[in-house]
Amino acid sequence: MKGPDNVTKVGTYRSIETMMNPKSVAVIGASNNPDKIGHIILQNYLDEGYSGKVYPINNKRDGDILGMKSYKSVKDVGAPIDLAVIAIPADAVPAVMRECGLAGVKSAIVVSGGFAEVGKTKLQDEMLAIARKYSIPIIGPNCLGVTDPKSRVNTMFLPSYKIDRPKIGGVSFASQSGAVGSSIFDLIAHEGFGLAKFISYGNAADIDEVDIIEYLANDKDTKVIVFYIEGVKRGREFFAAAKKASQAKPVVIIKGGITNEGAKAAHSHTASLAGSYEAYEAVFQQAGFAIAKDMQELLDYAKVFDTQPLTTGSRIAVITNGGGIGVIATDAIYQNGLTLATLTKESESKLRKVMPPIVNIRQPLDMAGDADDKRFGDALSVISADPNVDAIVVIALFQTPGADSRVAATISHYNGIINKPMVVVSPGGSYTEVHKNMLENTGVPVYSSPGAATRSLAALINYSKYRKGVL
Amino acid sequence: MKGPDNVTKVGTYRSIETMMNPKSVAVIGASNNPDKIGHIILQNYLDEGYSGKVYPINNKRDGDILGMKSYKSVKDVGAPIDLAVIAIPADAVPAVMRECGLAGVKSAIVVSGGFAEVGKTKLQDEMLAIARKYSIPIIGPNCLGVTDPKSRVNTMFLPSYKIDRPKIGGVSFASQSGAVGSSIFDLIAHEGFGLAKFISYGNAADIDEVDIIEYLANDKDTKVIVFYIEGVKRGREFFAAAKKASQAKPVVIIKGGITNEGAKAAHSHTASLAGSYEAYEAVFQQAGFAIAKDMQELLDYAKVFDTQPLTTGSRIAVITNGGGIGVIATDAIYQNGLTLATLTKESESKLRKVMPPIVNIRQPLDMAGDADDKRFGDALSVISADPNVDAIVVIALFQTPGADSRVAATISHYNGIINKPMVVVSPGGSYTEVHKNMLENTGVPVYSSPGAATRSLAALINYSKYRKGVL
Repeated sequence: MKGPDNVTKVGTYRSIETMMNPKSVAVIGASNNPDKIGHIILQNYLDEGYSGKVYPINNKRDGDILGMKSYKSVKDVGAPIDLAVIAIPADAVPAVMRECGLAGVKSAIVVSGGFAEVGKTKLQDEMLAIARKYSIPIIGPNCLGVTDPKSRVNTMFLPSYKIDRPKIGGVSFASQSGAVGSSIFDLIAHEGFGLAKFISYGNAADIDEVDIIEYLANDKDTKVIVFYIEGVKRGREFFAAAKKASQAKPVVIIKGGITNEGAKAAHSHTASLAGSYEAYEAVFQQAGFAIAKDMQELLDYAKVFDTQPLTTGSRIAVITNGGGIGVIATDAIYQNGLTLATLTKESESKLRKVMPPIVNIRQPLDMAGDADDKRFGDALSVISADPNVDAIVVIALFQTPGADSRVAATISHYNGIINKPMVVVSPGGSYTEVHKNMLENTGVPVYSSPGAATRSLAALINYSKYRKGVL
Repeated sequence: MKGPDNVTKVGTYRSIETMMNPKSVAVIGASNNPDKIGHIILQNYLDEGYSGKVYPINNKRDGDILGMKSYKSVKDVGAPIDLAVIAIPADAVPAVMRECGLAGVKSAIVVSGGFAEVGKTKLQDEMLAIARKYSIPIIGPNCLGVTDPKSRVNTMFLPSYKIDRPKIGGVSFASQSGAVGSSIFDLIAHEGFGLAKFISYGNAADIDEVDIIEYLANDKDTKVIVFYIEGVKRGREFFAAAKKASQAKPVVIIKGGITNEGAKAAHSHTASLAGSYEAYEAVFQQAGFAIAKDMQELLDYAKVFDTQPLTTGSRIAVITNGGGIGVIATDAIYQNGLTLATLTKESESKLRKVMPPIVNIRQPLDMAGDADDKRFGDALSVISADPNVDAIVVIALFQTPGADSRVAATISHYNGIINKPMVVVSPGGSYTEVHKNMLENTGVPVYSSPGAATRSLAALINYSKYRKGVL
């Protein structure tokens, strides 16, 4: 996996900036055949409305590709090329890389597979040596490349009808694996997150985890860094970069190859040396990362970090329109090392005045199945102002007679004006989904189970303590 | 919570049968006012197309209710009444229960709240004494009652536009909590499960956990029993019934009130004495129950039990069209106490013949991102026949160029013909959802993360061992 040792590494986090905001892109392997990867990538640039210059390159073709003038080589373009996206068979890549060097191409994303991950380390090294000779930083090979919804760059060679498109937002996601990358990209879009940057970096021949974390830590559009890694090559540098990144913004991580057998699978996947997970876990913890145990947790954690303020306190108030889920939430709070808040006497007496007599003023606050927007608002108003409350779990069951769009609007309103973290639990079907979307569009994180909501809140509190130095 | 001790318990599991298949139903508290619970229940019976006789009862009204002749009392009906659904203020229930007794009503579901759960134990006991005097078994009070999509009985008083409607199927769900009940009911419908019976039993004044588990164990439409409980009143009887049920069919359980604070919340919710969770856990384990740690796990487990055959073996083969998720799945397999299968030499050589050269014939089998229906079929054909394989995890990423509806159809086909458990992992957005639905409609359980899929498979294997006496 390592490049030839006698050649200096070219790529840095600044190279990624060039790739994310190129003024001109050459798509090498561009084709009119919709089955070809180069076709899909070129089509992406057109579909996204990318405003820079695009040059289709195909050494076997004269004439237009997708209605654009094509070239047999980057050397024929005769204009500056910021980024070459290379989507041709692996064996042909070194020669093309040389042409890129001669043409003064500034950076390259090699999406082609067939290098170190299938044992062709020499081929990968050969390509790398050429790139380094011409000072071309590389992402890849064996990757999906990058997506930036803001600059409208998208090198992902997957049919666009198969993947939902995320809106512009604050979550950036980097993945060594293209499969994990594209499926989580799809989930991010489907669950309504906003995306800042997506980076699938495959074999990491040149640009690696260290460069990526430095780039995302410095990227002003990125609020939360989400990372899937299988192995890290430059351990010490990674640790330093990780700690620095964590001081700037939260990092949520999932590692593939935690078990011995998983590590073997990772090695045959991206030629990664997964190493002992204990060592990784120690690094992640010392760097203040939120460690996700599963893909769903990765998204659950990202959601709360993307939308909610930090707090080091762990006293959680629960308000609910269904008693049983309040019970489950209470269990989940204690199982995740948090505690139920004890409201002040003042809050209790205020609540007693606004709640109907049937409501027992205690924590969790079970407002009963007929709770409407007024009752949700009254409870949120009192509880959010209580100095004994650090964060709030709102259980809004939209199956109940009183819960409707006004309840969702009320929760959104309070989410906007209070400076304490709030998470919502709303399990359910179609009617609930509509209101989940309503809430998430206004920055309220919604979960379908108390466990997921509470674990995410615990991750937020844990990170807050890390940031304040109390962990 | 306990009825007056000097009166014998009336309800048994056979009483529930009467309530699920009544020839005639009286809705007490029926109303033309759509805000009234009695209105919603009556409307449900009309909407569902219930074929028995329905008698609206309202003591304040002459004339029709929802176009049907109404009566001031059940005593005025002058025809047999199998079930009375009582939806009136708590204070009025004892008198109405007496009228039911005098009219020879065979069973009653008391949906009204305002009894033991708010401290009115005497009122509940008074009602219960009358019911017992007239030998009327009761579900409730403080509950949603029952739903049976086959007999079209539905006493759930929640607006039908807020809850998805499940199709007829094999999962039965009983919940002490109405809130947990209705939200999981909604999720069951939304996730495409088929429902056999739904029972929300609230304060369990008469019919309780023991009767319900006996009923569902005996119910021939129920393949899987799913249970939310807060407390059990008749511990020894419950344990005996639980063990017996588990020998007939799988039981998935989640308990509210696991922590001390959760137990307090449960007590104020349904007046349940939650007791020590360790004791409950021991009983559940000895009874072979699958214990869900969260609401989502409850559904995850139900899905695999509802659709897949049992196996006591724990050698899992993985086939995937994305390497990274194969790595995560491998980790999940070992973290859940299972192992990757070692294929026979014969299987390996067969796979080598049908897979392209780039595919490394090992476990997990990474078939590469261009795997199509043919490749999925070839892999499933060889692996399902391998004697070293006990169960299969299929990772089908529908973002990839090769994966489409034919891949889903191929997986469905093999799910139908092989006699080993199979679970599918397909994380993604809209395009994936369509194919998830395709798969689940043919009885393939689909999960959005390797963790959920593998945990569910482990629960299935654990239960299989219990059934075979090897646990």
